[in-house]
Amino acid sequence: MSFEQINSFGNLRHLITLEGLHKSHVELIIERARRYLTAVGEPPPRADTLRGQTVANLFFEASTRTRASFEIAAKRLSADVLNLDVNMSSRAKGESIIDTIFTLEAMQVDIFVVRDAGPGIPEMIARQVAPHVCVLNAGESDISHPTQGLLDLMTIMLHKGDPGKLTVAIVGDIRHSRVARSAHRALSTCGVGELRLTGPAELLPDDHEFAGAVRATDLAEGIAGADVVMALRLQKERFVQLSEIPDPQEYFRRYGLTEDRLGVAKADAIVMHPGPMNRGVEIESAVADGPRSVIREQVTNGLAIRMAVLELVHVHVRRARGERR
Amino acid sequence: MSFEQINSFGNLRHLITLEGLHKSHVELIIERARRYLTAVGEPPPRADTLRGQTVANLFFEASTRTRASFEIAAKRLSADVLNLDVNMSSRAKGESIIDTIFTLEAMQVDIFVVRDAGPGIPEMIARQVAPHVCVLNAGESDISHPTQGLLDLMTIMLHKGDPGKLTVAIVGDIRHSRVARSAHRALSTCGVGELRLTGPAELLPDDHEFAGAVRATDLAEGIAGADVVMALRLQKERFVQLSEIPDPQEYFRRYGLTEDRLGVAKADAIVMHPGPMNRGVEIESAVADGPRSVIREQVTNGLAIRMAVLELVHVHVRRARGERR
Amino acid sequence: MSFEQINSFGNLRHLITLEGLHKSHVELIIERARRYLTAVGEPPPRADTLRGQTVANLFFEASTRTRASFEIAAKRLSADVLNLDVNMSSRAKGESIIDTIFTLEAMQVDIFVVRDAGPGIPEMIARQVAPHVCVLNAGESDISHPTQGLLDLMTIMLHKGDPGKLTVAIVGDIRHSRVARSAHRALSTCGVGELRLTGPAELLPDDHEFAGAVRATDLAEGIAGADVVMALRLQKERFVQLSEIPDPQEYFRRYGLTEDRLGVAKADAIVMHPGPMNRGVEIESAVADGPRSVIREQVTNGLAIRMAVLELVHVHVRRARGERR
Repeated sequence: MSFEQINSFGNLRHLITLEGLHKSHVELIIERARRYLTAVGEPPPRADTLRGQTVANLFFEASTRTRASFEIAAKRLSADVLNLDVNMSSRAKGESIIDTIFTLEAMQVDIFVVRDAGPGIPEMIARQVAPHVCVLNAGESDISHPTQGLLDLMTIMLHKGDPGKLTVAIVGDIRHSRVARSAHRALSTCGVGELRLTGPAELLPDDHEFAGAVRATDLAEGIAGADVVMALRLQKERFVQLSEIPDPQEYFRRYGLTEDRLGVAKADAIVMHPGPMNRGVEIESAVADGPRSVIREQVTNGLAIRMAVLELVHVHVRRARGERR
Repeated sequence: MSFEQINSFGNLRHLITLEGLHKSHVELIIERARRYLTAVGEPPPRADTLRGQTVANLFFEASTRTRASFEIAAKRLSADVLNLDVNMSSRAKGESIIDTIFTLEAMQVDIFVVRDAGPGIPEMIARQVAPHVCVLNAGESDISHPTQGLLDLMTIMLHKGDPGKLTVAIVGDIRHSRVARSAHRALSTCGVGELRLTGPAELLPDDHEFAGAVRATDLAEGIAGADVVMALRLQKERFVQLSEIPDPQEYFRRYGLTEDRLGVAKADAIVMHPGPMNRGVEIESAVADGPRSVIREQVTNGLAIRMAVLELVHVHVRRARGERR
Repeated sequence: MSFEQINSFGNLRHLITLEGLHKSHVELIIERARRYLTAVGEPPPRADTLRGQTVANLFFEASTRTRASFEIAAKRLSADVLNLDVNMSSRAKGESIIDTIFTLEAMQVDIFVVRDAGPGIPEMIARQVAPHVCVLNAGESDISHPTQGLLDLMTIMLHKGDPGKLTVAIVGDIRHSRVARSAHRALSTCGVGELRLTGPAELLPDDHEFAGAVRATDLAEGIAGADVVMALRLQKERFVQLSEIPDPQEYFRRYGLTEDRLGVAKADAIVMHPGPMNRGVEIESAVADGPRSVIREQVTNGLAIRMAVLELVHVHVRRARGERR
């Protein structure tokens, strides 16, 4: 059972990780996603593209936002959508997941959207599904969240153009962040001027990770002259020991994004956050809701990215089934 | 951020409360709802009216019946429907709710149906959404449940005509009842002959509430000569102290609706209950399932009211978006 | 309130039990289901058959697989689908269920799919619904699971033809199994060569049950020369005392299906399991995923059976409503 995200026709089949995905695919997804954006006030685009296909949202880790985004994306493309929130005890979990997948596959589910707190599950599934079936990773432990990486890159490019000329600063709990890992991967693939990682030493990643990035523990140093400042959510649920979680007030004092502290960034710097925000911890409301913030656009772009990815992989489903349109 | 339920064209935009809603709007909603009724045995009406629009059912308080009613109403009008059952701890709840709303708005959700055990949440949301977005209150603490008030008024009018000539008796736990408050508001707006409130003294509302209503603690006195008798559910979850909840047997002995006790009401009086019923506590089964009961019609009318309200507010969405049909 | 699964036109209205269902109806359902199968790689069939009808999945007992199967079946027939997972305390449960049913009926739900851990609930509902409404049993205590019985019969017939010439062996926890009871019923209706029940003495059914079946406590004896070997799930949740649950390793040693032990069955015997499997307890993976296994086909056939049953009962709904197509 092999694992290739790109099929033999060179088209996207799975989206498990941005690792190894060629720049042309990243650009294609973002280009398609742009077609799913409409001007403010315009109704959202709809299409019949996935009519007759079945998308299962298989969420082993709870999520309101990402689930809603994938569900709306699939519905606006006219797919049948099945929501499955599954709580599984750890014993024999991998085995049970695969049996659940085989069962849904036998009901002719074509596309699986999988979110799991454990590492390796989306790839394990992708290795075992039938040849026409596609798997999309909707968040995997602290490892990978590829549609988030793509929406972040898209948001940066829409505002700032070519990332090769930009300084991008990621601030906060980078160690536990799949968002940061996928952003790093997306930016590296397309080329980024400078990537800076800023946070308390214990929340910075291990040295072998984030090749090419500059590290700082001082916020002013980390965001000085930056074009893009991306705050991360404190992922309390991923700390091994409760005692390691930073005190929120102390954290805000040192790393919280405020209008004041953003003064050292470029005058036209944009501010991002993957949400859900802890206001007053990672970011103050004046920034989150202020003119630099592109946080809501990230959500809109995320929906467009998910529509684009669904549209691209559905071509694999149709071709592998021998369907014509 | 202003809060007006009626937009500048005089059309319904939000439905948070019946307070201040003009009689002409109440009548318009009910008139539209009547078009969504079909004869017994006929299939329910469907329409393409909301095709392309997205309705989010955002329920912070669990509900099977009201959720099902709004979900079916939206689907029969061809909307995309998103169900979100959200459990939130109290800390920073208001802030989290608003971020959730902004997130869904950025996914181009057009209409929010909100149910919450806390007061003020639907209005808080309505004050902050984008200009084209609509908010419908599906039950708010013990304060307001406007579609319930409208369906109750509609049910009364369909059976008894002009409420200005009627005596309407509400029986039971009025103090904790958003159903009673919205019924009072709907009846006051359209004019009611006499409104009587009957229940144990400790379950009657404060004196400044329910202007114009007559109060009684004796059931026979409360329902004597009534055209309409509406029993309420004992809202055990809204009592501050468990010790205050009436003993069910004692309550039934004094306030339970029985065929026998209904003898003092008009011979053709109708009996209502918002459900879910505690049979043998608020009402005996012979009454609930008997010829006077219009309880199932209330449900059918409720679905029609929700379709009518969705139809009316969707006009706001389209106009604010600059869409033509 | 009468209870007839077949209406006065001789058509299927409810499917609560296979008990008393005539062979011609069983054959008709399976024949229709075959039309809903497609070759591997082909897209699943879709139809407009249930457009405008509302199907409520009312699950009082949790289920991922059966719920997904009924939900997909209804959506592929273009029905509106309402999912209701209801947790009810035992007090006044029957009464609350009926009030929930009446409420949904008043919202013009046409078809109820009901799953309950308690006995008698689906029939109780079928006895009380309006004349045009249909009820399908999606699993009832240890008593009945009619669509499972039909899908098992269909799977056997597709592989082996006329069951009248076959030896079918059911292995495992037959005492607590609605799957075994419905399989027995389906096979008896259509005629089965020999039905064998094998398991530890304490998991075999009472003597008055499973008329005509042969019993064994030794696995080799039970499956010798069998054309079909059906393993059952150990229904741990249905044991009265925890101490009665067999030790998994000991159970596998005596009754687990292995390639080795299946050597005494016919060379071309098929192996079935209703899922979800406990691999290494009821069955080893080499068998579950091996060439004899038809376990995934059972799932595909199950979806087709549910589409066929929905299609058949919807004719009742339309006729009882006086609709033309």
